[in-house]
Amino acid sequence: MEILRERKPPIAFISLNRPERMNTFNIPLATQLNQALLDFEEDPEVRVIVIRSEGENFSAGIDLNEFLKREGKELREFVKLMELHSHTIADMRKPVVASVRGYVLANGAGLMMASDFAIASETATIGTTAIRVGLACIGPGVIASRCLGRKRALEMVLLGEWIDAHEAYRLGLVNRVVPDEELERETERFALELSERNPFAIELAKKGIYASEDLPYHQALDYASELFTVLTQTEDAKEGIRAFLEKRKPIWRGK
Amino acid sequence: MEILRERKPPIAFISLNRPERMNTFNIPLATQLNQALLDFEEDPEVRVIVIRSEGENFSAGIDLNEFLKREGKELREFVKLMELHSHTIADMRKPVVASVRGYVLANGAGLMMASDFAIASETATIGTTAIRVGLACIGPGVIASRCLGRKRALEMVLLGEWIDAHEAYRLGLVNRVVPDEELERETERFALELSERNPFAIELAKKGIYASEDLPYHQALDYASELFTVLTQTEDAKEGIRAFLEKRKPIWRGK
Amino acid sequence: MEILRERKPPIAFISLNRPERMNTFNIPLATQLNQALLDFEEDPEVRVIVIRSEGENFSAGIDLNEFLKREGKELREFVKLMELHSHTIADMRKPVVASVRGYVLANGAGLMMASDFAIASETATIGTTAIRVGLACIGPGVIASRCLGRKRALEMVLLGEWIDAHEAYRLGLVNRVVPDEELERETERFALELSERNPFAIELAKKGIYASEDLPYHQALDYASELFTVLTQTEDAKEGIRAFLEKRKPIWRGK
Repeated sequence: MEILRERKPPIAFISLNRPERMNTFNIPLATQLNQALLDFEEDPEVRVIVIRSEGENFSAGIDLNEFLKREGKELREFVKLMELHSHTIADMRKPVVASVRGYVLANGAGLMMASDFAIASETATIGTTAIRVGLACIGPGVIASRCLGRKRALEMVLLGEWIDAHEAYRLGLVNRVVPDEELERETERFALELSERNPFAIELAKKGIYASEDLPYHQALDYASELFTVLTQTEDAKEGIRAFLEKRKPIWRGK
Repeated sequence: MEILRERKPPIAFISLNRPERMNTFNIPLATQLNQALLDFEEDPEVRVIVIRSEGENFSAGIDLNEFLKREGKELREFVKLMELHSHTIADMRKPVVASVRGYVLANGAGLMMASDFAIASETATIGTTAIRVGLACIGPGVIASRCLGRKRALEMVLLGEWIDAHEAYRLGLVNRVVPDEELERETERFALELSERNPFAIELAKKGIYASEDLPYHQALDYASELFTVLTQTEDAKEGIRAFLEKRKPIWRGK
Repeated sequence: MEILRERKPPIAFISLNRPERMNTFNIPLATQLNQALLDFEEDPEVRVIVIRSEGENFSAGIDLNEFLKREGKELREFVKLMELHSHTIADMRKPVVASVRGYVLANGAGLMMASDFAIASETATIGTTAIRVGLACIGPGVIASRCLGRKRALEMVLLGEWIDAHEAYRLGLVNRVVPDEELERETERFALELSERNPFAIELAKKGIYASEDLPYHQALDYASELFTVLTQTEDAKEGIRAFLEKRKPIWRGK
């Protein structure tokens, strides 16, 4: 298996599992990663999904040998599969947290950026580095520009430099930086905190923020308003408000 | 009155005035806030509008009791009213400056973000915190993502953490941070500086920047160019240029 | 000549050459700047274009006297010409690097922002300052908002303050800040590094990042994926991968 799954409800863990190849993407890894995301999205006990890695590195990108084997239509299908997780994560109701250390390069950086959140070890070396082998991280650049603006996205993708976790934090690509030995604990703490929120509130907020990037401003505000109206009418929202006013923990019932 | 108005031309002040309820939003406050914005927009002697607060806190968001009272169509109307100021501010010709201290939470944070500018006291605690009561600051998240990119907006809205004024400055959500005792003075100084600019130049620049977010890049550049052409043909623009060349203060005549 | 050209393949240099007028824009300068960009875009030996300046200042914007001479249709044509480089740079296949020192104001700041990259001397003073003469840098504001978000773009354009090179770096408007005596060397080093990358990869990555700003997210990801597929099928991309695996320098053949 190129991907390991671990269920610890309310959290599910997906681990990239080709450590001997620096967790580079090939067809089985990309396929299993996408399938695991879809399966955990439907798993009623799972509220947050963590993507992490076996070994010292998150992922060094797509296995370069894979490009040399293919042509034409087959190559196009391959390319689409390598980035399929970006589409999947954007469409998921549940939040996805990348937990990264070591090399986080090219398609590996793209996976980190496409995740809703990223927790990084201080050891992380991040780069959209395909330009260094004559390719270019165009898809990751698309995601980067929505997180950190045009000039910085151009620099990351056209130069392909490595940045460290602290710089990635400064730019807005990672949400937390921790010593390497704290990565698992901090990731779990972060995911647990997300899992304690009202899942439907999480779903609608994620939906609203992603959708608003593609809508004119006034329409985005209106859409947000409708989502919020739907949310306020649910039983869980009322439970949340009551629990807050009564200074107790809310109990989410999914209604 | 849930809102106090003060006219000190060229500046107008709107103060949230429910300090005993941490300036939380209810129907009168939201209605009066929106009306004050519209009135000052039409006031010929007012050039800059400041939104501030009575008491120690800017606003703790929507009064939670309000959600529990309403259902269906009535709740939807209520939600739309609570965020109406976002639409209004974006459409106004005049710049709006939020001056914040203490709690700036949920809809209060949204009001600060929707304002064109924000001056913050070091005491300010800012957060899109509705997720902590089972709701979610979706509208504020829409605004946040246009100021600071996707990952940081997701973090603010889905986690609902509090950030301090310095962190808000680093992220690009506030324009100035000052010691609490300097807040009024710095706000007034900032507003006065804006008020000394050519008001039509301010109007067209604001229009261009908001509109450009919703336009493809080349169309946005073209639109900016047409706005700039209109501006250069006005008497006030020529007066501004002549005053600069003659090293004197310009006199704006609104032509 | 208001513009000097220097060819040092793979780099071409365009220098603003009205130092006695602080390199302000007039019709000849804007016309020659745009023509030089177009010519170097078609020059097969040129891979990267640097825009720099003669004298101590990059550019203080449009020559203010030019506005007072024109009316109506003629003024509109003039305005469009002054900002034509923004359209040109966005459409070019080759990367454009601005190398700036001294005053980088108004249309000069716009030129720096419109460039794909910017290297700044510590002496650089940057500002979208037209608002100080009764105009407003609306076009530069459009570009700024795509680099650094709404609130910061509004502040730059509506207040027209000067910022230094370090602040511009913090905000994401420049890619490098160096001591003044290092500006030429660092610019050349940066341009050379870009020139060593696969030019077709640079072209498609630039295309993808600019285009994605104007596309909905999923469509942007799909478009990036198609561009990447085209790229992977080229001989140069395969050469790049082979060179990397064989630990040698790649040789780009433009195929």
